[in-house]
Amino acid sequence: MAGFDTVSFLSDYGLADEFVGVVKAVIRAIAPGATVIDVTHQVPAHDVRAGGLVLARTIQYLPAGVVLAVVDPGVATERRAIAVEVGDPTDPDSGTRSVLVGPDNGLLAPAVALAGGARRAVALTNTDLHLPAPGPTFAGRDIFAPAAAYLCAGVELDELGDPVDPSSLLPGILPLSRLENGGVEAEVLWVDHFGNAQLNVDPDEIEEMGSPVVLKMGERSRTAVRARSYAELAPGQVGLLVDSYGLVAVALDQRSAAEELRLAAGDPVRIQAVDA
Amino acid sequence: MAGFDTVSFLSDYGLADEFVGVVKAVIRAIAPGATVIDVTHQVPAHDVRAGGLVLARTIQYLPAGVVLAVVDPGVATERRAIAVEVGDPTDPDSGTRSVLVGPDNGLLAPAVALAGGARRAVALTNTDLHLPAPGPTFAGRDIFAPAAAYLCAGVELDELGDPVDPSSLLPGILPLSRLENGGVEAEVLWVDHFGNAQLNVDPDEIEEMGSPVVLKMGERSRTAVRARSYAELAPGQVGLLVDSYGLVAVALDQRSAAEELRLAAGDPVRIQAVDA
Amino acid sequence: MAGFDTVSFLSDYGLADEFVGVVKAVIRAIAPGATVIDVTHQVPAHDVRAGGLVLARTIQYLPAGVVLAVVDPGVATERRAIAVEVGDPTDPDSGTRSVLVGPDNGLLAPAVALAGGARRAVALTNTDLHLPAPGPTFAGRDIFAPAAAYLCAGVELDELGDPVDPSSLLPGILPLSRLENGGVEAEVLWVDHFGNAQLNVDPDEIEEMGSPVVLKMGERSRTAVRARSYAELAPGQVGLLVDSYGLVAVALDQRSAAEELRLAAGDPVRIQAVDA
Repeated sequence: MAGFDTVSFLSDYGLADEFVGVVKAVIRAIAPGATVIDVTHQVPAHDVRAGGLVLARTIQYLPAGVVLAVVDPGVATERRAIAVEVGDPTDPDSGTRSVLVGPDNGLLAPAVALAGGARRAVALTNTDLHLPAPGPTFAGRDIFAPAAAYLCAGVELDELGDPVDPSSLLPGILPLSRLENGGVEAEVLWVDHFGNAQLNVDPDEIEEMGSPVVLKMGERSRTAVRARSYAELAPGQVGLLVDSYGLVAVALDQRSAAEELRLAAGDPVRIQAVDA
Repeated sequence: MAGFDTVSFLSDYGLADEFVGVVKAVIRAIAPGATVIDVTHQVPAHDVRAGGLVLARTIQYLPAGVVLAVVDPGVATERRAIAVEVGDPTDPDSGTRSVLVGPDNGLLAPAVALAGGARRAVALTNTDLHLPAPGPTFAGRDIFAPAAAYLCAGVELDELGDPVDPSSLLPGILPLSRLENGGVEAEVLWVDHFGNAQLNVDPDEIEEMGSPVVLKMGERSRTAVRARSYAELAPGQVGLLVDSYGLVAVALDQRSAAEELRLAAGDPVRIQAVDA
Repeated sequence: MAGFDTVSFLSDYGLADEFVGVVKAVIRAIAPGATVIDVTHQVPAHDVRAGGLVLARTIQYLPAGVVLAVVDPGVATERRAIAVEVGDPTDPDSGTRSVLVGPDNGLLAPAVALAGGARRAVALTNTDLHLPAPGPTFAGRDIFAPAAAYLCAGVELDELGDPVDPSSLLPGILPLSRLENGGVEAEVLWVDHFGNAQLNVDPDEIEEMGSPVVLKMGERSRTAVRARSYAELAPGQVGLLVDSYGLVAVALDQRSAAEELRLAAGDPVRIQAVDA
């Protein structure tokens, strides 16, 4: 089976150190023809949930190929290093076959599910395909990057290590909103660079509440209007937009809604009709 | 007409989220052979002026190809999405033909002017070449990136949408310095990573004032010496250097002049002779 | 002699401005087939020591090719711009021949030493291979990037400028730990993104002290246990791990040891046995 020509790479390495560059150097040494796309390297340190959500949002846009994801607080412990195949391996023309490489800590799980589930999985136990490591704490360099690169170079999935039952992989947790007393109990999934706070709410869920609605955040309440674009919002007016992933986001025009409303990822938000 | 092999990409997306990575993934899916050069993605959020100045400084160094620029506070409104051709399209060997892709909000205008003006322009109205969008707020992914990628893949400019009269494009604003009472009334164009404050002043404009000169910043004044290198400056001494773009910059040696003098982009600075 | 196809690029340019992008644009114009790997661009501004340490840590992982390194507080002064060849130029199959390009200020020296020492060196005095510069302060763009790119394009080292005696290159300074009164007097080499504080200490040096040991930082003391992984550490417990470069690092589990212990690069740390 042919290899891959793209590695989409996500981590919590940050950009201050050489971690990302070293991983790319390792990939280039093994698979000189592969192109690396940086998804982001600023997942909050050790935040497996946030990393899993980034992957879930992006997986549909990533080219067929290898997805290398490293948010790995359990590095150097017994947590498994894995490669998970998704898509249809028997149909090379489907353009959907990809392999996700990373720690078995739930990070890959939401993206794997969105990609139709795991076809096959292996633990990266073939140490012949690891780099010799001066110390055990940089699995991205020594274990994950070589695996991603060897896959690009045409090495078969099952050469990377022992088969793993996909049903044994650690699941990810995607919080679901729920209807309660006529309102929607939601959660902030993500605050983006512009301060928009994405909620785990589908626009349909709040359709019948009309506009404006009331947002309840702990003890605080704010009125918010449904809007299609940021520019529709008056200065200081809180809006609920359908964001670029099709979910409801709390937003202000050219200001940070998260800062203004003191919202962070994981915070609960209740949406209810004004007359509730 | 042949396509392009380079996309130079600038935005205010920041690097914390996956926005930049997703745009690159979209480009790669459409134009796998194109290389993306990141100009910067840390234009201050929504700051069209700052983004336009970055493009103006860099356009002369960017390879012939597509320039993708997204600072777009009016996303999802009626502002036009455009592609603007510069250089000589009838002379493929000139190596100067480029197409700038972005919102019609003045962002592209200074660079277009420096590249000799717009030859042709289109609005990106051909929705067949857009990505289906779960929500309307990520035009970089859904409209601009596909346009840039299709241009690389050899799609003709006029297939992207309706022709636009170049004279109807929103102009950019480049502040000019002016002579007043024997001094130069200037403005900080840009504070760089090292704290150098670039002024909209050509070295010739202050040649006759000699050295040192006086800088007036609101109520504050500082003496500054003309210098050729940072290292010529004594510790704490304020200097005026010809910076790498040929403009006058306020600088300190190995310290941030902007921090020391509390200067930010847009601030007025008056330069006058010591005996004025 | 053939050229190179990879430029590994390190600087203190930061990512807010267009500096890194412009350097890549210049490289692409001269050597379109070359791939640039960003090692990091967030070396603290002007910090030659920190940049040299990054290069020293990474050189063994970088592909044979050009290493472009710019931390250059002396730009536009008489400090030399240099290119230094390492590896075996007579053995093209060795895969180890590289050329390091940067200022002669000690930045390249530790990596050159680790790569087996300089075979040949030149000063980048051939101005025909420089870019015309509107101002002298961006040698990365005008002198170093073209040199790196021309090397990729197959230009011989000695065409870049006058030969330089390798023994005349400015040495780098790598602080050594020392044994004193039965303890090890060490220094923090590097604080990484996760807050781990790497010391200039080989695990062998503290082997006989057993575990736990005492860390003395100025007036402060903390007990630290030897550990193999972060996860072995109890909440708040300070650990000494063998880090991914084989050196001893001060660490906490999922928290910043540097922040908790107020450690920064360059700080002295004494390690001694508990009963000392």
